[in-house]
Amino acid sequence: MDYVKPNQALDEIVEAGAAKADMGKGRMFVRGVLGGAILACATTLAFTAAAQTKIPMAGALIFPVGFVIIILLGLELVTGSFALIPLAVLRKRTTPGKMLANFAWVSIGHLVGCAVYGALYGLTITKMGTDMSNPLIQTIISASEAKTVAYKHLGFDGMLLVIVKAMLCNWMVTLGAVIAFTSSSTIGKIAAMWLPILIFFGQGFEHAVVNMFVIPTGMMLGADVSFGDWWLWNQIPVLFGNLIGGALFTGLLLYLSHKDHKKAPEKAGAMFPPASPAEATQYNT
Amino acid sequence: MDYVKPNQALDEIVEAGAAKADMGKGRMFVRGVLGGAILACATTLAFTAAAQTKIPMAGALIFPVGFVIIILLGLELVTGSFALIPLAVLRKRTTPGKMLANFAWVSIGHLVGCAVYGALYGLTITKMGTDMSNPLIQTIISASEAKTVAYKHLGFDGMLLVIVKAMLCNWMVTLGAVIAFTSSSTIGKIAAMWLPILIFFGQGFEHAVVNMFVIPTGMMLGADVSFGDWWLWNQIPVLFGNLIGGALFTGLLLYLSHKDHKKAPEKAGAMFPPASPAEATQYNT
Amino acid sequence: MDYVKPNQALDEIVEAGAAKADMGKGRMFVRGVLGGAILACATTLAFTAAAQTKIPMAGALIFPVGFVIIILLGLELVTGSFALIPLAVLRKRTTPGKMLANFAWVSIGHLVGCAVYGALYGLTITKMGTDMSNPLIQTIISASEAKTVAYKHLGFDGMLLVIVKAMLCNWMVTLGAVIAFTSSSTIGKIAAMWLPILIFFGQGFEHAVVNMFVIPTGMMLGADVSFGDWWLWNQIPVLFGNLIGGALFTGLLLYLSHKDHKKAPEKAGAMFPPASPAEATQYNT
Amino acid sequence: MDYVKPNQALDEIVEAGAAKADMGKGRMFVRGVLGGAILACATTLAFTAAAQTKIPMAGALIFPVGFVIIILLGLELVTGSFALIPLAVLRKRTTPGKMLANFAWVSIGHLVGCAVYGALYGLTITKMGTDMSNPLIQTIISASEAKTVAYKHLGFDGMLLVIVKAMLCNWMVTLGAVIAFTSSSTIGKIAAMWLPILIFFGQGFEHAVVNMFVIPTGMMLGADVSFGDWWLWNQIPVLFGNLIGGALFTGLLLYLSHKDHKKAPEKAGAMFPPASPAEATQYNT
Amino acid sequence: MDYVKPNQALDEIVEAGAAKADMGKGRMFVRGVLGGAILACATTLAFTAAAQTKIPMAGALIFPVGFVIIILLGLELVTGSFALIPLAVLRKRTTPGKMLANFAWVSIGHLVGCAVYGALYGLTITKMGTDMSNPLIQTIISASEAKTVAYKHLGFDGMLLVIVKAMLCNWMVTLGAVIAFTSSSTIGKIAAMWLPILIFFGQGFEHAVVNMFVIPTGMMLGADVSFGDWWLWNQIPVLFGNLIGGALFTGLLLYLSHKDHKKAPEKAGAMFPPASPAEATQYNT
Repeated sequence: MDYVKPNQALDEIVEAGAAKADMGKGRMFVRGVLGGAILACATTLAFTAAAQTKIPMAGALIFPVGFVIIILLGLELVTGSFALIPLAVLRKRTTPGKMLANFAWVSIGHLVGCAVYGALYGLTITKMGTDMSNPLIQTIISASEAKTVAYKHLGFDGMLLVIVKAMLCNWMVTLGAVIAFTSSSTIGKIAAMWLPILIFFGQGFEHAVVNMFVIPTGMMLGADVSFGDWWLWNQIPVLFGNLIGGALFTGLLLYLSHKDHKKAPEKAGAMFPPASPAEATQYNT
Repeated sequence: MDYVKPNQALDEIVEAGAAKADMGKGRMFVRGVLGGAILACATTLAFTAAAQTKIPMAGALIFPVGFVIIILLGLELVTGSFALIPLAVLRKRTTPGKMLANFAWVSIGHLVGCAVYGALYGLTITKMGTDMSNPLIQTIISASEAKTVAYKHLGFDGMLLVIVKAMLCNWMVTLGAVIAFTSSSTIGKIAAMWLPILIFFGQGFEHAVVNMFVIPTGMMLGADVSFGDWWLWNQIPVLFGNLIGGALFTGLLLYLSHKDHKKAPEKAGAMFPPASPAEATQYNT
Repeated sequence: MDYVKPNQALDEIVEAGAAKADMGKGRMFVRGVLGGAILACATTLAFTAAAQTKIPMAGALIFPVGFVIIILLGLELVTGSFALIPLAVLRKRTTPGKMLANFAWVSIGHLVGCAVYGALYGLTITKMGTDMSNPLIQTIISASEAKTVAYKHLGFDGMLLVIVKAMLCNWMVTLGAVIAFTSSSTIGKIAAMWLPILIFFGQGFEHAVVNMFVIPTGMMLGADVSFGDWWLWNQIPVLFGNLIGGALFTGLLLYLSHKDHKKAPEKAGAMFPPASPAEATQYNT
Repeated sequence: MDYVKPNQALDEIVEAGAAKADMGKGRMFVRGVLGGAILACATTLAFTAAAQTKIPMAGALIFPVGFVIIILLGLELVTGSFALIPLAVLRKRTTPGKMLANFAWVSIGHLVGCAVYGALYGLTITKMGTDMSNPLIQTIISASEAKTVAYKHLGFDGMLLVIVKAMLCNWMVTLGAVIAFTSSSTIGKIAAMWLPILIFFGQGFEHAVVNMFVIPTGMMLGADVSFGDWWLWNQIPVLFGNLIGGALFTGLLLYLSHKDHKKAPEKAGAMFPPASPAEATQYNT
Repeated sequence: MDYVKPNQALDEIVEAGAAKADMGKGRMFVRGVLGGAILACATTLAFTAAAQTKIPMAGALIFPVGFVIIILLGLELVTGSFALIPLAVLRKRTTPGKMLANFAWVSIGHLVGCAVYGALYGLTITKMGTDMSNPLIQTIISASEAKTVAYKHLGFDGMLLVIVKAMLCNWMVTLGAVIAFTSSSTIGKIAAMWLPILIFFGQGFEHAVVNMFVIPTGMMLGADVSFGDWWLWNQIPVLFGNLIGGALFTGLLLYLSHKDHKKAPEKAGAMFPPASPAEATQYNT
């Protein structure tokens, strides 16, 4: 009953993408703060699970908790939107300008949410900075360095490498955002979303929002990473790779997989008028 | 089908919060007794699982059984209400006074429920006080001391630390209370609630109701913790941190994430008259 | 959709309790036979899992299979009824006499079912009595002695101890029987029931029906336990503790948690006439 | 919603049993071939899982995949029918002759399906007979001998032993076939069926169709088992024990647990006319 | 509710097969690209899980993520279609020519998708070719050689062996494609599909699309496998074996298991007219 066929799901995805782009900036920001903080919290849980079991895949099996909470509660994750909003632009349901505004405000929210969680979490694992013996401290420092200076040492190869890992990552993250629309049931959404998120985390690909938490928190804890290393060798190329991976591998290919050529002209006609605010609001959940 | 969109869920959350605040005191107390005892029982189960596997995360994976039973059976957990009732106050569906009465009576119930379970459980693991060899006895004593005197030794830092850990904890607990409203199906509620509860327990954050069981039970079993240590260095700051974490991180931010600015004036108008008892009763499940 | 709110579930629980008390004695007996044998079979499965993994919790995670089969197939488990039928008596939907008749006939059925399964299972693990090398034989013998003579050696303390463990056990078992009513979906019922049953078995509490299998089977296999030890130091106090735990902790407290004081008089009036057979039959599934 | 109460499920079970008995022989045979081969394939998967983990229960946790596929796709498993068709005979919805024809044709199908899968699987693990180093080869040979000559060495005790193990086995297998009717949802059926099948495989009981694969495949691979050993010391007594266990423990006891004595005469009257082909067809899915 | 009986599911399977054959070539290609790449990504996840746990079955338990994503998103997997489209041909709902066109275009898409993912993944695990220390590199090289030159060394036996393993593999893959139609619920589809896919991967059978990734990627990483080895000793015989296994074991046998002989003539008549584009489109999801 609750299974939504891909064609219909694609229509809902486009509307959801349009609604995301039409939201107020304040709301984008707040949803981004919560989205970033929740993803950061899932990351520390996954690190804990991997550390306790010595099996990184155990962390990956548990990591999707954060993504699922974000989507069920209608919060924002910019990497997930990297497929949804471009699809809405492609179908002329919103504009590139509004898309970029969403990306910007949500990302700023993520940075704030990750920073607040990173600071609070850093305080707890260091006992307010008095005790550096918790092994998770070294885990985060190492991850922080592996995600920045390790690429820098490879030079141009490192730049390409981090972009490729970001593309592969967000291909999966956007599949997670998209596959949630194949069910109108909560358990169906949870189970379906779990799969692609598990795939990307289990293989160590590069996710911009996870990194917005891991790298600065590692820096706060003493990682040998400069602000420039963070942004030049990770955050900027990862955001770029995530966007390419999401928009092309998921957005464009899924569009080409399902769009109905015959119906396209008529439908497109009906779509030309700008979406009414009322229509957009209904997806603005 | 059963997935409830966040906007609609938020309306139901507000009504549920209002209904909780309007309940009779006796009922608040009894529901608090059962809620506290069930959470305590889930805590001892999690301790057992962690002790047998030597993997603390195994305890965390199993700990949400208690929270889920409490919510499915419509019992009370004051930490969960720390987001729900403030939201109802924010929307003027109940009063701060009623909110505080709920917090007080439910908390008293929790203390009683945890004490009764703690006493009965303590009797079983010590074989009526005749045998102190069960390793769970030391687990509880150690947890009891780690949750009180360890903070005390850090002085002011310890006070801040316990508050931060309580804020992070209840951010997740209240997400668990809130996310249950995103499904009208039992399996959907169970799966969704499991996620945030697992997150907080897996990372050792501080939860007031768990502590209402662990600390006094540890004291009964011989922990070197005074009544003052319990309340000054844990129970009071944890309740405070839980309230801040729940009301701000979940309550306020979720409200800002989803409230509809345009519709607010009209809707608020319809909401000004105090809820009729009949209306409140329907949520008083 | 399928989630049943606690108030409504409580009404259904009362009707189910009344229907159980109104059943024919033969049916009570046969349902008791099957219920006892299935629970016994789940117990040997759990013993096997614990023995193979050396982790008792692995047995507990798997043990609820038996309880779930019993409830889904509408069979009887007297310990589950220890909350359901007293609630029906409390609401005057059946009589204490009928309640006791149900308890008696179902218990006799359990004894027969457990004895038949115990005999057949004992024959298989001993290869018709020719081979005592299977480690499960010693597991059952040890459990049998731990559940009887170990309490006897503690004297009066042992008597109190076994009663406390029985009360805690059946608080959870009856929560399992009750929580099944919070869903009208099979998967929802299965998931919900799993939780409290896992809690009690994982902590080694005392369950009368499990013991109706473990102790006499252990005796057949050579445990140093007399018929008197079995009944005086386990079966009678455990039945008593199970009844108290179920009727008070779950039955009464849940009733106080949810009963509607205002509506009670009217509703009670409608309830005074004895239930018509037709009405009772509909729950007699 | 999808939970089907036992009384109603029993009616559907009887109709399904009648429809099975009324099917064409060719269809019985083909469904039996697929049913046997799928169960054989699930058996080799379970052997693989147990061998890799050294925990037999891991194989049992995974083994139900085969039973679930068979039931969801409406194929035949004769051991499951050992409760369903006798119930239809008991309610006079089909005849003993038709029942025996179903048992015979489906069993022949099972033998063929198991032989084909056994031959193909034997070729793969021995690399077309060129390499006997795969440890699963010895696993199957040992199982084959344990299931035949080990009983033979016990003489009359062995004959009783294998029958008892077959009775216990099929009590659970038929509960699996029956419990599928307590849900009209796919996930509910899957979860419910998993439980009894896991119970029987986890405890090493004797299942005729599993043995139709294990023993002859073991013989092909070099087990010291004669054709007579296979049939006299396993296949015939196991089929007999499976039938008794299914028909009595599940069929008869479940019938006595739920049949409505008062309504029986009228209902039985309505049932006397032979089922019309149209009616039977609707279950012939 | 959501369970779809096999007869009805079979009708939907035939329509879905016909719709697949009627799709535009470009869409076949794009869906094939995504399908191939997603399956390749699930393969590397499974390799990672197996490497970390040293238990190959752990990889198999996680591998179905890819298949499930492909089916839920309505993408193409040629091996799954090896049962669906032949069934549509058998019922005269499409033509053998269209069937072969689908097989060809989807396979070309798979080759492209697997090559792109293989190249990108190879770059990440070798850090752009600068570091060959990642153990997964050797895993893929070994798998690549085991799937080609190992068969070649066995000569004619090796050719038969690879075909048998391909037949067994795709019997299960097509059961996965078919069993998805037994539920109209997302969670039901996910759970049902998981089973047969787990079975084939857990036993190391040969799947053409997995191999389209593993073998050329292994070659890129340095495996001693020639282009001829790849196609002659794996890809061609595996495609052949997959087709036979899917079309005969699942397609034909399932058809014989459920087709209604009596209704066949009339129904077949209604089916003779070529499907209208509108009808076909509705399955073209």
